[in-house]
Amino acid sequence: MSKKVFGIDIGGTTVKMGLFTEQGELLDKWEIPTRKDNGGAGILPDIAESIKKKMSSDGIGLEDVCGIGLSVPGPVDDNGVVHTCVNLGWGTIDLAEEMRKHIDVPVFSGNDANAAALGEVWKGGGKGCRNVVAVTLGTGVGGGIIVNGKILSGSGGAGGEIGHIHMVDDETEACGCGNKGCLEQYGSATGLVRLATRRLKEDDAPSVLRNAPSLSAKTVLDAAKAGDAVAIEITERFGAILGKGLSIVAGVVNPEMFVIGGGVSKAGDIVIDIIRKNFVKYVFPGSRDTAFALATLGNDAGIYGSAKLVLDGVNAK
Amino acid sequence: MSKKVFGIDIGGTTVKMGLFTEQGELLDKWEIPTRKDNGGAGILPDIAESIKKKMSSDGIGLEDVCGIGLSVPGPVDDNGVVHTCVNLGWGTIDLAEEMRKHIDVPVFSGNDANAAALGEVWKGGGKGCRNVVAVTLGTGVGGGIIVNGKILSGSGGAGGEIGHIHMVDDETEACGCGNKGCLEQYGSATGLVRLATRRLKEDDAPSVLRNAPSLSAKTVLDAAKAGDAVAIEITERFGAILGKGLSIVAGVVNPEMFVIGGGVSKAGDIVIDIIRKNFVKYVFPGSRDTAFALATLGNDAGIYGSAKLVLDGVNAK
Repeated sequence: MSKKVFGIDIGGTTVKMGLFTEQGELLDKWEIPTRKDNGGAGILPDIAESIKKKMSSDGIGLEDVCGIGLSVPGPVDDNGVVHTCVNLGWGTIDLAEEMRKHIDVPVFSGNDANAAALGEVWKGGGKGCRNVVAVTLGTGVGGGIIVNGKILSGSGGAGGEIGHIHMVDDETEACGCGNKGCLEQYGSATGLVRLATRRLKEDDAPSVLRNAPSLSAKTVLDAAKAGDAVAIEITERFGAILGKGLSIVAGVVNPEMFVIGGGVSKAGDIVIDIIRKNFVKYVFPGSRDTAFALATLGNDAGIYGSAKLVLDGVNAK
Repeated sequence: MSKKVFGIDIGGTTVKMGLFTEQGELLDKWEIPTRKDNGGAGILPDIAESIKKKMSSDGIGLEDVCGIGLSVPGPVDDNGVVHTCVNLGWGTIDLAEEMRKHIDVPVFSGNDANAAALGEVWKGGGKGCRNVVAVTLGTGVGGGIIVNGKILSGSGGAGGEIGHIHMVDDETEACGCGNKGCLEQYGSATGLVRLATRRLKEDDAPSVLRNAPSLSAKTVLDAAKAGDAVAIEITERFGAILGKGLSIVAGVVNPEMFVIGGGVSKAGDIVIDIIRKNFVKYVFPGSRDTAFALATLGNDAGIYGSAKLVLDGVNAK
C-alpha cells in the first residue's frame, strides 16, 4: 500500500480533515466539530479518534501513515509548540507530544494561515512558484509567506501577520489585536463594511447601498460592479489601503506572486484589479511586476498545506 | 594548510577585501579602488588580480581556497546574476562566470546590504540569532533580512529593500527610486537633515541648530542629546517614522532582533531608544518583544558576510 498523509485544519468551529496520498492526491475529506469546552482538552483526542476510525475503515495501518499535519488558528513556534490559541481555548501545548499520546505517528504543525499559503503554493493559485505571499481577505486579513518553498514562520510564529501592519494614523476604533489603524480594519470583509458605513454617513449621495437590507462586503462589491458611484468610491478606498499595504509587504519580501483568497476574493477580478492598481503606485520599482492570482483551493487550502507540512518534514529527513 | 576564504565587498568607490580562515577569523583586509570607467569592465579583473597577488605573497594555492564571496550594491538573483547595478556601471552580468575567467575557484555572490546583514548575524551584533533584520541608516536606509540563518533575497533579489516601503502620503519630493514618501526619505542621515531643515522653517523657535555651520545627522542628534528642544522634536519625528516602518517589517517577518548600523547608528543608544519607543506603539503584539542591538562590525560587515556566503555555499554541498 502506498503511504498516506493526514492533513488536519483545526478551526474555531470545525476541524477539517483530509486523507492524502504521498503524491498529494486528496482521497477523502470530512469534518468534525471543534470541542472547545474544558480549555479545548478534547480537540486533539477527537482528531486522533477520527483518524483511527478512518484508518480502520480504509484498512490503513500505522506503518502506512507518513504522518499527521496539524494547522491551528494561532502562532506555532519552530518546535511545534503553541503558546496561546484563544480561539481554541488553549494555553501552551506541544502539539506533537500531545497528539502522540493518542496515535503514534510523526506529527508536524503550523499556523493555519501559513499552512493555507503552503497549500496554495503546492496545489493552488501559486502552483509552481517558490516565493509567494498568500493573503486571505475574510473576517480579518490573514497572511502566509512562502520563501523558497518554505513557510516563513518568524522567530515566535508571528511571521506573515500582515493583517496587523499599521496603515492609518488617525483611526479611533481599536482592532481585535488592541492596536489602532491595522490593515485588517480596512482590507477585510469587515473592514470594507466599516468603510461603507463611514462613507454613507458622510453625505446624502444616492446609492443602492442605502436601500440594502444589510451591508456586507458582497453587497458593496456587487454594487460597485453594477456601477454605483458611492460603492465604487468605497471600493477605491478599500483598494488604496490594501494595495499600499501589499506594496510594503512586497518591499520587504519581494515575492513573485500574491495569491488572494478568502470570502472577499469570491468577487473575483474586481478585487485583484483594485488592489493591483494601487499596489503599483506605491511599490518599490524592483517589485512592480509582482503577479496577482486568485486562490483556488478555497476551504481546502488548510488541509492541503497541513499535508504538505508532513511531506516536507519527511522529505527533509 | 587550513583552507582560506576571500570576502569581497564591492562598493561604488572602493572594493573592500578580506582574507578569512575557514573558521571565520579575519586574517587580513585591504582595499582597492573601484574602477568604474568602461562600464565597470575592470572591476572583477582588478579583484582577481589583487586576490592572486595576496595568494602569491602568502603562499596560498588555488587548492587552499574554499571560494570567493562577492557582494555588490544592487540586486543579485538566486543564480548569482546581477541584472543592473547602476553604481558600478554594470548591466546584466553572471558574477561567478565572469570571475572564474580570471581565477578558477568557487564564487558565491549576493547583495551588499544582505551580505552585511549575514555578517552581523555571523560575527556581529546579531551573533547567535537565526532571524534578524539588519537596518543600515546611512545616506539611505538599507535592509537585510536573515530567516533561519539565511538571506531572504526575494524572487528578484529585491528582498529587504525596506528603505523604499511607503510611509508618508503627502510627500512632495521624490525619493531616489522615483516614488514619494519612502522610509529612507525620513529615516536616513539625509532624511534626518531633511526633517531638520523643514522643522527649522516652520517657526523661529530658538535652537543651536540655527547657528550650526552645516546641518548633518550628527549635528541634530548631538543637539538632541544636549537637550535642544527643537532637535529633540526633529529626532522624535525621525524616530516615529522609523519606529513605525520597522513595526511593519516586524509584522511581516517577525524577527527576534533588529541590528541597527550605518553612520546614524554611531550616535548610539539615543537612536535605538527613539526607534523602540515608537516601534512598540505600532507593532503587532506578537512581535512587541523584538530586541534592538547596534551593529558591531562597521565597514567590515560586508566582507564578513561575503565570506559567510562562501562557507554556507560550501557547507550546503
